[in-house]
Parts: sequence; structure tokens; C-alpha cells
Amino acid sequence: MYLKDRFLKDNEASLSYLDLSVQRGYAIFDFFRLVGNQPLHLQDHLDRFYSSAEQMRLPIPKSRGELKQIIKELIWENELPDSGIRVQLTGGENNDGQEFISPTLIISQIQFPFPSSSLLENGMRLMSYQYQRQLPQVKTTDYLMSIWLQPILKDGNADDILYFSGGIITESPRSNFFIVTAEGKLITPGANVLKGITRKNLIQMASTEHAVEERDVRMEEVAAAREAFITSTTKQIIPVVQLDGKMIGDGKPGSVTKKLMKQLGERTGLH
Amino acid sequence: MYLKDRFLKDNEASLSYLDLSVQRGYAIFDFFRLVGNQPLHLQDHLDRFYSSAEQMRLPIPKSRGELKQIIKELIWENELPDSGIRVQLTGGENNDGQEFISPTLIISQIQFPFPSSSLLENGMRLMSYQYQRQLPQVKTTDYLMSIWLQPILKDGNADDILYFSGGIITESPRSNFFIVTAEGKLITPGANVLKGITRKNLIQMASTEHAVEERDVRMEEVAAAREAFITSTTKQIIPVVQLDGKMIGDGKPGSVTKKLMKQLGERTGLH
Repeated sequence: MYLKDRFLKDNEASLSYLDLSVQRGYAIFDFFRLVGNQPLHLQDHLDRFYSSAEQMRLPIPKSRGELKQIIKELIWENELPDSGIRVQLTGGENNDGQEFISPTLIISQIQFPFPSSSLLENGMRLMSYQYQRQLPQVKTTDYLMSIWLQPILKDGNADDILYFSGGIITESPRSNFFIVTAEGKLITPGANVLKGITRKNLIQMASTEHAVEERDVRMEEVAAAREAFITSTTKQIIPVVQLDGKMIGDGKPGSVTKKLMKQLGERTGLH
Repeated sequence: MYLKDRFLKDNEASLSYLDLSVQRGYAIFDFFRLVGNQPLHLQDHLDRFYSSAEQMRLPIPKSRGELKQIIKELIWENELPDSGIRVQLTGGENNDGQEFISPTLIISQIQFPFPSSSLLENGMRLMSYQYQRQLPQVKTTDYLMSIWLQPILKDGNADDILYFSGGIITESPRSNFFIVTAEGKLITPGANVLKGITRKNLIQMASTEHAVEERDVRMEEVAAAREAFITSTTKQIIPVVQLDGKMIGDGKPGSVTKKLMKQLGERTGLH
């Protein structure tokens, strides 16, 4: 891994307890996957990383070229194909909250669990929860609510949360949400969400065959939807078959969803 | 300072980049002051720390007696009278978000800036901002919004933020808010706020001479108030003389506020 200005072993990589991520939860990150040893959608993820940093007023201490070079060296050294790379930037130490003099850059390569074949084949159950992520367009490290909700999720026999606010659906803690209408139209929340890279690529891909709308999605529209699914970097596409214990469509992964899963897998090389 | 199970020098105290505070912003803390070398309201702060930890499902790896002993040793070793002690607990490493197996305990002693005599004498200017802290009753390390708002504060010629939601005032990022009505009644928001220890002690103290209400406070009530002030552990009481550029009362620290500042100072031994 890489921390501040050095390549380190994972167990050597530590940061001061005074780091603003530890003290005040002020940090951003991004995460992309490797297909073999090749980063997937690296440009998109770096674009978003730079955008998150700018919105948080955090200067990235490396140029894009330097970041790419560090990532390349990490991949070369670690020999961990089909894993993921997490690029993080924190508020660092010694700052007054006005100006960030020494942000901490952390780049690590991680093996993460793939979605189970059961989830892929049978779909997942979501549970709605009223909440709006703060600074939703920034990929911050603020996952307080999603971790805090874990027991509620378990009690509710659900696999993940679906946030909503004022009757409008936004997103899952780590995924974007789509419905497929009876007419085969794809609709995904357009505001107050983190715009996922998989979301972006899926919209682009699906637009050749489907009308796609990015706009407010009301709770009632999910009940009336024929299909639903989520998208994320780690999960790619997972069918959603239940919301709050009620079936979506016929309660099975839909044909449009299955088609998109297949097409996206062929496009990315992930499977 | 004290980290995990050891006393360390401040510059030796580091934690893994995998700690859940760094990765996912999952951590709580509390902070109390020393009068000389004597902790102020230690029981209240430890009560709140244990309550925050319980609400976040974080097991505190030490008993209350052990915590107090560590704090005592730190104070003895550091010889930093009139400073503050920060007690923090993070989600730690190696957990699935369901159960926290190894939370990280961090206890540090810090010198912090006292409020300037200008603020104490002339009062502060607040700027309202629509926002509701997540899990408001828990003292988490989530100060994302308050740090993010720093430039807006500067542009607005204000000293601090006052959060509100749905027309109801809640709190400042690090302080509780009070108004004094024309009849000399004290009113402070009762819901969706972190209940400060200074707030608690002030209410107790003021109740002998004033009616005190803990309830929803509407924005309009601030405009009509005779005086306003904030309370916090570091600041104790600071008069508030402006909200969003409009004077509160006659725009000067009020007589009730000044009386309470004096009484609280005598009570705590802080000055």
C-alpha cells in the first residue's frame, strides 16, 4: 500500500490519531476494480476522486499522472489480480478547518467479497429508511448511518437499505437504484445521490435499447415497477425483488435486469 | 496519551488505516476540561461517553474504574493543568459492521484555545444553516458539515453556525443554544440535539431564578428574544448578539447572560 509519500506493507501503514479522518470524520475516497491487473474505468474514478476532493477543499498532493504511476506500481508489486484499489484522501493533521495544509493520501489494494451466486440468481431484498446522506454528490467516508443500521437490516430480513426522503427514493448506502417500468423504461433517481460509475456506464449502455430517465422516483413507483435492480462497483448489477417485504413485479429477477447483467458483464470483462 | 492498551508519546500514537474511523467515519468521543488538574463534571462526561458507545453498539474495553485510573495517570504524567481530555472510541479493525470485536480506545490530553475576550465581552454572530445532525443524541466524530461550512461562515461574517430544520432551531456544531425571552424565561431546543454537559449544568443552576423550558424553538422566537447565548465545554457561555446579520435584543450581551456567565464561572472555577 501507499501512505503519504511511501510504499509500505499493509501492517506498517498507520496514521496519527490527530488525522482529521479520526478526529472529525473528514475524508473522501474512491474505489475501482481490476479486471486481471487492468483498472476498470480508471479515468471515471479519478475524475470523481478529484471532484470529491475539490468539493471538500482538499488539495490532492499528487498529479493525475503521479497517482496513476503509484497505482501501477502497487498493482505490479502486490500481484493481486481481480481485486480492488481504494484511493483515499483525509483532512490530515495540523489544520484549522479553513485550509488543509497536509492532507493524507492513502492508496491500498484490497480483496473484497464478490456478491454471492444466490444474490445474483435470486435477487436481493431492500428495506426503506428515511435518511438523506450529507453532501450526497461527494464520496465521503461517512457511512455512519449504514453501519448503524446493520441490526435493523437483520431484524427486517433485508439485504440492504434503500434511503428515501420526503417520499422520494435516493440510493442504497453503497449502490444506485433503478426501476424498470411496465413499458421497459429505466428510471433512476437523478438528485441527491452519489452518481456511481457503474450507474453511468449502465445508463450509457442501456440507452441504445431503452428509454432511460434520471429524475425523482417516488416510493409508489417502485410498487408499480416491473423490475428493479441496484448498481455498484463491487456488485455491478444485482436484481432487487422485494422492498419492505413486498414483491417487486413477480418477485423474481426480471428479464431486462438479467439481460443488462449479461451485457454489462461482457462489456467490462467482470463475471 | 493512551492508545489501545498503552501509554505513548503523542507522536508515537498512530492507528491502522483500516480502523473504521478512517475507513467509514464510525467513532464517538467525549471531551472534558480540567480545573487545575481536577476533571470538571467527569461523571457526566463518562455517563455520556458510555451512552454514546452503547447507542453505537461499541463495547468499551475498560471499566469505568479503569478509565478513571488511566485519566488520572495521564494527568499526573503530562502536567498540563487547565487543559482538556478527549476520550475516543472507534469501530476499530477487523469487523463486519455487525459486531465490533476490537474497538480502538484513544485518550489524549490537549491544550485548546480559550474563547477570546472580544467574544466574551462583545458576543458572537451566528448564521443559520438548514441541516440535521445524524444520530444527534450521540457524540460521534461526524463534523463533516461543520468543517465543510467554514468558508461560508467566513463569507457570511459570522462566528459560528446555528443549525435548523423545518423552521425549528437545534444547535450549533459544538454548542447548545439558548434564548432569554422578554419575561426572563430561558428556552433551549429539547429534541434532535446533543445534550451538552454545560447545558445540563446551566439549566440546573439557572432554574433557581428563571423558568427554563426545553422544547422546540422556532426561528421567529429568536428574532423576538431579548438575549441569546450558547453553551459548550470549551466555551462555557458566550453571548450571541446576531443571527443572520440581524441583532438579537439590543445587539449587546444581555444582563441575564452576563449574570449566568459570572455565576457559572464561580460554580465551575473556570474563568
